[in-house]
Amino acid sequence: MFRLTVRDHIMIAHSFKGEVFGPAQRLHGATFVVDLELARRELDADGIVADIGLVSTLLKAVLAPLNYRNLDELDEFRGQNTTTEVLARAIAERLRARIREGALGDDAKAAIAALKVTLGESHVAWASYEIPLPG
Amino acid sequence: MFRLTVRDHIMIAHSFKGEVFGPAQRLHGATFVVDLELARRELDADGIVADIGLVSTLLKAVLAPLNYRNLDELDEFRGQNTTTEVLARAIAERLRARIREGALGDDAKAAIAALKVTLGESHVAWASYEIPLPG
Amino acid sequence: MFRLTVRDHIMIAHSFKGEVFGPAQRLHGATFVVDLELARRELDADGIVADIGLVSTLLKAVLAPLNYRNLDELDEFRGQNTTTEVLARAIAERLRARIREGALGDDAKAAIAALKVTLGESHVAWASYEIPLPG
Amino acid sequence: MFRLTVRDHIMIAHSFKGEVFGPAQRLHGATFVVDLELARRELDADGIVADIGLVSTLLKAVLAPLNYRNLDELDEFRGQNTTTEVLARAIAERLRARIREGALGDDAKAAIAALKVTLGESHVAWASYEIPLPG
Amino acid sequence: MFRLTVRDHIMIAHSFKGEVFGPAQRLHGATFVVDLELARRELDADGIVADIGLVSTLLKAVLAPLNYRNLDELDEFRGQNTTTEVLARAIAERLRARIREGALGDDAKAAIAALKVTLGESHVAWASYEIPLPG
Amino acid sequence: MFRLTVRDHIMIAHSFKGEVFGPAQRLHGATFVVDLELARRELDADGIVADIGLVSTLLKAVLAPLNYRNLDELDEFRGQNTTTEVLARAIAERLRARIREGALGDDAKAAIAALKVTLGESHVAWASYEIPLPG
Repeated sequence: MFRLTVRDHIMIAHSFKGEVFGPAQRLHGATFVVDLELARRELDADGIVADIGLVSTLLKAVLAPLNYRNLDELDEFRGQNTTTEVLARAIAERLRARIREGALGDDAKAAIAALKVTLGESHVAWASYEIPLPG
Repeated sequence: MFRLTVRDHIMIAHSFKGEVFGPAQRLHGATFVVDLELARRELDADGIVADIGLVSTLLKAVLAPLNYRNLDELDEFRGQNTTTEVLARAIAERLRARIREGALGDDAKAAIAALKVTLGESHVAWASYEIPLPG
Repeated sequence: MFRLTVRDHIMIAHSFKGEVFGPAQRLHGATFVVDLELARRELDADGIVADIGLVSTLLKAVLAPLNYRNLDELDEFRGQNTTTEVLARAIAERLRARIREGALGDDAKAAIAALKVTLGESHVAWASYEIPLPG
Repeated sequence: MFRLTVRDHIMIAHSFKGEVFGPAQRLHGATFVVDLELARRELDADGIVADIGLVSTLLKAVLAPLNYRNLDELDEFRGQNTTTEVLARAIAERLRARIREGALGDDAKAAIAALKVTLGESHVAWASYEIPLPG
Repeated sequence: MFRLTVRDHIMIAHSFKGEVFGPAQRLHGATFVVDLELARRELDADGIVADIGLVSTLLKAVLAPLNYRNLDELDEFRGQNTTTEVLARAIAERLRARIREGALGDDAKAAIAALKVTLGESHVAWASYEIPLPG
Repeated sequence: MFRLTVRDHIMIAHSFKGEVFGPAQRLHGATFVVDLELARRELDADGIVADIGLVSTLLKAVLAPLNYRNLDELDEFRGQNTTTEVLARAIAERLRARIREGALGDDAKAAIAALKVTLGESHVAWASYEIPLPG
């Protein structure tokens, strides 16, 4: 299996509901270093998993509506905690939708076998969400 | 699959038996940067894999009996080399036992699907041990 | 010159005033990885710049009032942007005051020649503030 | 599953054919930080995945013919782009061949279950190739 | 003293003249992770060393003529080795010239006290060049 | 000013005397990631601070007598704690002596203006010692 990863980041504010979160129930924020990993079994005719320029552009586009935002104010996260895990899934699902729409081209759309989004919230904690992409 | 990782470290002395270890047969030591990764299929009601505070506390508690120790003197490692691989397994198995006892709560106990412990021994070498946790 | 550095982190929300900040004028947030570096010319009788346990505890104590906060709501930052640079200075000045009060002991109080605080806001940007400490 | 990883690097020149590569169609170069990960289910009698000294020596030996080279001039890559993905596969396949020949000893030859080669091309992009090794 | 650093990277080919370079006399290449550090004594009215957006744009602009190039073919480096040290100086001098022309604004032009360019060539080697900027 | 840095590491055992060290009074150990930084004002005729191959070889040679050792048993450290700071100084002083003897060549011997040794003991703590080298 081949895997290609590109890195970007976002800076957001949010707060959590639930005693388990302790002081993180207060409005605070995070830098999330975001790694997008794409997997495929065979390379395309150019010898790549996907056009790294397109992948970087796609990742930045998917992150843009979240970047420099207070996530507590976004409708799509209403009623749920925007934990690192929840955000990893939300970003992964948007990326999957965009790839299905052809954002990385028809070849990648057919061949990418899985995607994984990892969000680093500090030098000592990170979380990821991985989903298979039916060929 | 969701995965959550937290990082801590220990500083230990030890020596190895066996010609394959060359100069590492002498008493020496290591800093191990320890990453604990937990996997689960669905998040809990709070939107997390596990309470990151509990996970960090659990990891520190499991590492404490090893930290600032000469591992050659510990009964539990008698007769075996405390290689990076062996230590990764020992730490992973203790974590599994504690999670089964409920150290991360009943929900995590039931839902965590796997745990992986990675020990970084330097900037150029690391080892891990991964075990499934039956739900 | 000897230098000792310890690392911790905070997660905060804030917003900036001024067109130069573009989208960062909106309420957003950051994880700051915080490095505290202490310099001194000669080591103490134990062979250290300062007790690393005390230094870590002091750094955590100084960061605590900022951690998991919306900095826009804190009186001390009223009327100024809590940029990475401004925060580095604020944290450095609090550390200097605490060291002068003896938080690291009398020997360190007399001997520490400088302190530097570096705040990493992402994998591609960081800022620091360095101040001399008269012996 | 146990996994052991060692790190080395190479510095190479190359160019790519295909419009998708944009400016990378020109002769340019890269430092690839190379991570070799070996997996096995049970440790050997010494408590290791493989002799880390042998693994490091093997990795360096396999990288040597590529290091400080213009890959465009090497026969083995004629007619294909030496993308990060293609190089990860080429290095992985050479390592597999050498392990099958016994470069890591008979025990490792029989027991290593998989190998993965990851090439970091910058702080924001990396690619890997993973292959199972029948026991 | 305040310092602000931003990171970018380039991928280049080159070769060196001189026996001291051994195999690096052959055409090869490198990824250079480039850190630009700016120092100033007092912050501007917005509480910053410089507009981080402008700094990142300036760094990218200065790196662009080198990126995806064979440095052996560039007139400006004729007759000299494009070692990590020489490139750090060349990039630093271009940045100084652009800052003097006002690329970071008049305030930064007057107040920036020093700039430092660090080029990371691998995970085990890097070089920098630092120059004072008269106020 | 130009600066060149190369990285290596050692793995040692030791114990400390003094209540300030708490559990580190017990025999334990550390991996020290060792960075050697050399500074000089002007580059040599080849465009370098020093031959990076020689620098790496020198660093490894100076570290060898410490690597895979219990520092408590070495005569040279009798009566003092081998703290990160003390080790940084010891390594720096040996490097200075070797450079003065010509280990990096006559040009480097005359031109290197300073050397700095940084020892990383974990992902959250490091210490350095810097000394001027009269030309």
